[in-house]
Amino acid sequence: MLVNGKHYRTIHLNESDNTLKVIDQTLLPHRFEISTLKKSKDVIEAIKKMTVRGAPLIGVTAAYGIYLACLEAEQMTDFDEYVSRIAKLLKETRPTAVNLFYSIDKSLKEISRYTSISQKINSAREYALKLTKQEVDNCRNIGLYGLKIIEDIIKEKKTSKINVLTHCNAGWLACIDYGTATAPVYLAKEKGIDIHVWVEETRPRNQGASLTAWELLQNNVPHTVITDNAGGYVMQKGMVDIVIVGSDRTSANGDVCNKIGTYKTALAAKDNNIPFYAAVPTTSIDIQIDNGIRDIEIEERNGDEVRYITGLLEGELKRVLITPVESPVKNYGFDITPSRLVTGLITEKGLVKPEKEEILKLFNPLRD
Amino acid sequence: MLVNGKHYRTIHLNESDNTLKVIDQTLLPHRFEISTLKKSKDVIEAIKKMTVRGAPLIGVTAAYGIYLACLEAEQMTDFDEYVSRIAKLLKETRPTAVNLFYSIDKSLKEISRYTSISQKINSAREYALKLTKQEVDNCRNIGLYGLKIIEDIIKEKKTSKINVLTHCNAGWLACIDYGTATAPVYLAKEKGIDIHVWVEETRPRNQGASLTAWELLQNNVPHTVITDNAGGYVMQKGMVDIVIVGSDRTSANGDVCNKIGTYKTALAAKDNNIPFYAAVPTTSIDIQIDNGIRDIEIEERNGDEVRYITGLLEGELKRVLITPVESPVKNYGFDITPSRLVTGLITEKGLVKPEKEEILKLFNPLRD
Repeated sequence: MLVNGKHYRTIHLNESDNTLKVIDQTLLPHRFEISTLKKSKDVIEAIKKMTVRGAPLIGVTAAYGIYLACLEAEQMTDFDEYVSRIAKLLKETRPTAVNLFYSIDKSLKEISRYTSISQKINSAREYALKLTKQEVDNCRNIGLYGLKIIEDIIKEKKTSKINVLTHCNAGWLACIDYGTATAPVYLAKEKGIDIHVWVEETRPRNQGASLTAWELLQNNVPHTVITDNAGGYVMQKGMVDIVIVGSDRTSANGDVCNKIGTYKTALAAKDNNIPFYAAVPTTSIDIQIDNGIRDIEIEERNGDEVRYITGLLEGELKRVLITPVESPVKNYGFDITPSRLVTGLITEKGLVKPEKEEILKLFNPLRD
Repeated sequence: MLVNGKHYRTIHLNESDNTLKVIDQTLLPHRFEISTLKKSKDVIEAIKKMTVRGAPLIGVTAAYGIYLACLEAEQMTDFDEYVSRIAKLLKETRPTAVNLFYSIDKSLKEISRYTSISQKINSAREYALKLTKQEVDNCRNIGLYGLKIIEDIIKEKKTSKINVLTHCNAGWLACIDYGTATAPVYLAKEKGIDIHVWVEETRPRNQGASLTAWELLQNNVPHTVITDNAGGYVMQKGMVDIVIVGSDRTSANGDVCNKIGTYKTALAAKDNNIPFYAAVPTTSIDIQIDNGIRDIEIEERNGDEVRYITGLLEGELKRVLITPVESPVKNYGFDITPSRLVTGLITEKGLVKPEKEEILKLFNPLRD
């Protein structure tokens, strides 16, 4: 998508020197900087520190991490041991997004098909590039299916303007291009539809206010930032036609694990008869989990993310304390929206109901 | 309640020089400072800038504002004209809390009963003092009725520990003493009940994280600060026994207008079968409004409250920018929780169902 009028992707393999170029998302919306990841340990750090974040992007970045690990292992006596050690460390960076585990396992499986080191390295590279392309195609297809839903609402409501509400950032910054939840928005905008997005700021890390608002701004999509608390109010007042969010992991029964607060937003949508969709590449669906509420592990993050907030002060990024320093805090990263609150899952294979039977019918390229 | 081990109220008339002493709530939790309000214009500013805030405290402060206006008008040719001009300005400070309008009207009514200036002044003073006492008594009584609910839950669940969740600050800082939503908590703590409070931070002004956490800390009540987004999660995980919030205005049919985000929290409580109570002094009930969702005016506040956040940086209060500076924002201050989501209203007269017939039975001292 566009940044300062120029097309970018969130991650790019610089083939001349085998380094990764990524947008440093911890600095947005205040500074746009490209970081270079040279080694697999840089990749591990980048995922941990959320330089890169968002389920699809985490998966792709990890695949490149395995590729870099293969390059590093080339001269080592035990190639496989080193690569599997890095794979383990990569898996330990974040616990919730399923893409991470699948892309690593899939990459390792590809590597294991070969015996020569150069072929192993090449297969890791090929897989990362293939996954990148696949995620872009997935987002584009999710966009097309989501656009159809938007057009149907316009027709049904006999309106010319559509208001979308979204939580967190399931935008192109969370992916490679287009985004998941934002793909229908960008395609609608491209098609000339009068679209406006309510952006919930998404505490504690404010990915809505800092990332979604920024990318919509850069791509000229009308939007308004609101607190997470205000999401219920705008729905209550009839100012929202559709809610679209992303997902870090969706269970086989259609429970949607997404950024903390999605559950409350889904409840408000339900209470106001507003359709609530999750934009879910099939790579984010975990068919091994039948009950998302019971079985998806929820990441508990550092309480300082709640205690402190980072923002711009006189041109510099500064972190200010907002709670009493002695007060205990808890920082749950995600929550589960039960399938009963979900109108549908927009996948790259089409729109499906959040029901096990429907979900299992989907072709899942990471599991084939 | 206690601050650094010493008992305080949020407002105090210094009778020797007729000045008001108030806690400057804009500096909490980082600095505890007492502000002096000398003139009615200082009172107007203090309400506008939220040096004082919270429906009951706003009402009481305004009553003292009328008293100060009377003192200022003493030597003027048109006493009544001046006082009613100040009354108008006071009413324009904040649109939502009904206590503001009632306390001003009631004070003016008291004044109008007398013809002599000194009697008018005295009646304004007496009314402000009476209202102060009444609000303290109300909170204490709300505490007793709320404590009963807590004790019933403990009995019913056969548990020894109780988890309360609250939103915003309906604590003693919002009142004169005890608080509304916090009164049952303080009384339970006094009685030795093992109580813990989940404090939703309450964006955008973070009254939960900055005020409720601070006052619970000062009074040794175990608590944990969470983002508003996490409120749904802790309920989903069975970590909450009861939700108690305050109210800025409650309509005759039991719709509860409270700080933005209360509606989402109430939806989460309902979805998890957790009782949701509003602690409502009858002074906050507006029996002239039959439908809160349709008829209560919602204050739209300055967008900079969403764009910027104030916190402590190297010992000083600093304001940092957290959104892209060009992104539009909206800042709705309150929302309405429909009565169907409310288990009960805890008033100083007892617990009532959120139904018109029940509510109208309440004796309302401000209207008698």
